[in-house]
Amino acid sequence: MKPKLNGKTAVVALGGNAISPKGQEDSIANQFRRTRESLREIMKLIKVGYRMAITHGNGPQVGNALLRVELARGKAPILPLGICVADTEGGMGYMIEQSLQNGLKSAAIDREVVTIVTQVVVDPGDPLFDKYTKFVGQFYSEEEIKNLAKKNGWKVKEDSGRGWRRVVPSPKPLHIVNANAIKKLVDDGTVVIAAGGGGVPVYIENGNIFEGVDAVIDKDLASAVLAKEIGAEELIILTDIDQVALNYGKPEQKWLDCVTADQAHEYLHQEHFPYGSMGPKVKAAINFIEWGGKKVIITSIEKVEEAIQGRAGTTIVRSLQ
Amino acid sequence: MKPKLNGKTAVVALGGNAISPKGQEDSIANQFRRTRESLREIMKLIKVGYRMAITHGNGPQVGNALLRVELARGKAPILPLGICVADTEGGMGYMIEQSLQNGLKSAAIDREVVTIVTQVVVDPGDPLFDKYTKFVGQFYSEEEIKNLAKKNGWKVKEDSGRGWRRVVPSPKPLHIVNANAIKKLVDDGTVVIAAGGGGVPVYIENGNIFEGVDAVIDKDLASAVLAKEIGAEELIILTDIDQVALNYGKPEQKWLDCVTADQAHEYLHQEHFPYGSMGPKVKAAINFIEWGGKKVIITSIEKVEEAIQGRAGTTIVRSLQ
Repeated sequence: MKPKLNGKTAVVALGGNAISPKGQEDSIANQFRRTRESLREIMKLIKVGYRMAITHGNGPQVGNALLRVELARGKAPILPLGICVADTEGGMGYMIEQSLQNGLKSAAIDREVVTIVTQVVVDPGDPLFDKYTKFVGQFYSEEEIKNLAKKNGWKVKEDSGRGWRRVVPSPKPLHIVNANAIKKLVDDGTVVIAAGGGGVPVYIENGNIFEGVDAVIDKDLASAVLAKEIGAEELIILTDIDQVALNYGKPEQKWLDCVTADQAHEYLHQEHFPYGSMGPKVKAAINFIEWGGKKVIITSIEKVEEAIQGRAGTTIVRSLQ
Repeated sequence: MKPKLNGKTAVVALGGNAISPKGQEDSIANQFRRTRESLREIMKLIKVGYRMAITHGNGPQVGNALLRVELARGKAPILPLGICVADTEGGMGYMIEQSLQNGLKSAAIDREVVTIVTQVVVDPGDPLFDKYTKFVGQFYSEEEIKNLAKKNGWKVKEDSGRGWRRVVPSPKPLHIVNANAIKKLVDDGTVVIAAGGGGVPVYIENGNIFEGVDAVIDKDLASAVLAKEIGAEELIILTDIDQVALNYGKPEQKWLDCVTADQAHEYLHQEHFPYGSMGPKVKAAINFIEWGGKKVIITSIEKVEEAIQGRAGTTIVRSLQ
């Protein structure tokens, strides 16, 4: 049976809470349960015929991986951050893939699902390499982390009054190494899970050698590059809240229904969207529209079906009709 | 530039020592170095134009993953074996993929490489589920492991006088869930890394639900299923030694150059090939030929180029010309 396709291709970026629900014990059973719930909503997009790639965050999972590596020091090899990211692409990809396959089977929708481990090219000369902006891994006391920092050559910072953590640079994603293969499969109707955790950052040395690098790539910015490179029309960024707001959390807060990329750019410069939350999502949206994308939706997983019909979420477009 | 293809498709199964060299510290740097060496030999097959999928073992890596999970108990979620296998498919796939991409670039060969996380269907009624035959993870003292066994519900066994280890069943692989996507990419000339560690074993419940299961699949048997399902002509199994022998290690030892699947089957029944070493490789070879495959080569990574020319290794075919 040929799957029903509606001619549109979307990249759907799953936020951390699509997999690790807040306020519940962080067990694999709970991750599977939450992933299945989340994927039920994504299924609705597949039902209406979207071709699709799915990306996802890996914050808690890569944090746990780094903690395990640290606790096994001297007993098992130390894994660099890039390998830990690739590991989570495997494990989380498997979990998302299987959950989606089960949902599709139950709904008798004949679409394949695969997970592709993804490398993302960054520029070693990117000035963002001098900025240690992304927290990774666990919280530690100041004394503990300063010892670890010395031993491992980590940079560390205090994270919003909650404790000390390791920080790494977050360079700009330039190109998805595996984009061609992803595009081939997506074009064919296969749902491809890719760029998990933003993908493994690599750079090209002397014109032709990939090397991994100790950094993490923002998964929404990577999703925008993927969406461009596979020729998607839509980028759908799923997060904790239903809409993007101006003056979020302030008395003059204003939810945004539909804005142009130019307006979004202006709001971004007015610092409406903090770096640690909506900032990279709005930036990813602006990038994708500038690169020729048709539409970006930022919403919660619960509202995604309404959002694609224009009845919920925040939509970013090139120009308002 | 269109890559040069010779019309033949091979599945190449890399043994553990293609990635983790014996007698060296098991660090990621050493794994990368050995992987690059091994891939230089595989490159020679790509140069002559083979379409290719590459599978690989994950014994030491999944052992380390299980150890890290155990040491972080109470501090990070316990990961089931299936997630650990999927993790290694991501991390090792990334390492192999990048090493091969670098080699291909240096040699100006225009072939893409991707890694696909692989699920493998097994039968929950497989009698092999009652046999705990595969050692996984670290060695422990008898006292230590009996505590762990109680806590985790493990089965444990003494491993050849070297200490105690966890044992899991190794059911028969029936079908590669992701075979279609792998075939599409391989047919197109992309080198696909798949079925790492034998793939994640899953079963189909009530006709339509995948569930993971605590077992490991033999990677050579999985490779034979993959080779069948992507329509490969050749299965190339790389291991520690250059050839398969009858009466291995005995005075009457005899190296095998070329045998039929029927002969191999007879030798297998005469117990020339122990379960822990050549047994599953020869079994995989027999299966593949019975399923319509043209040729299986069992050899070392160093001899693979000579072996495909019929000048080294052990070749298994349907009938001798």
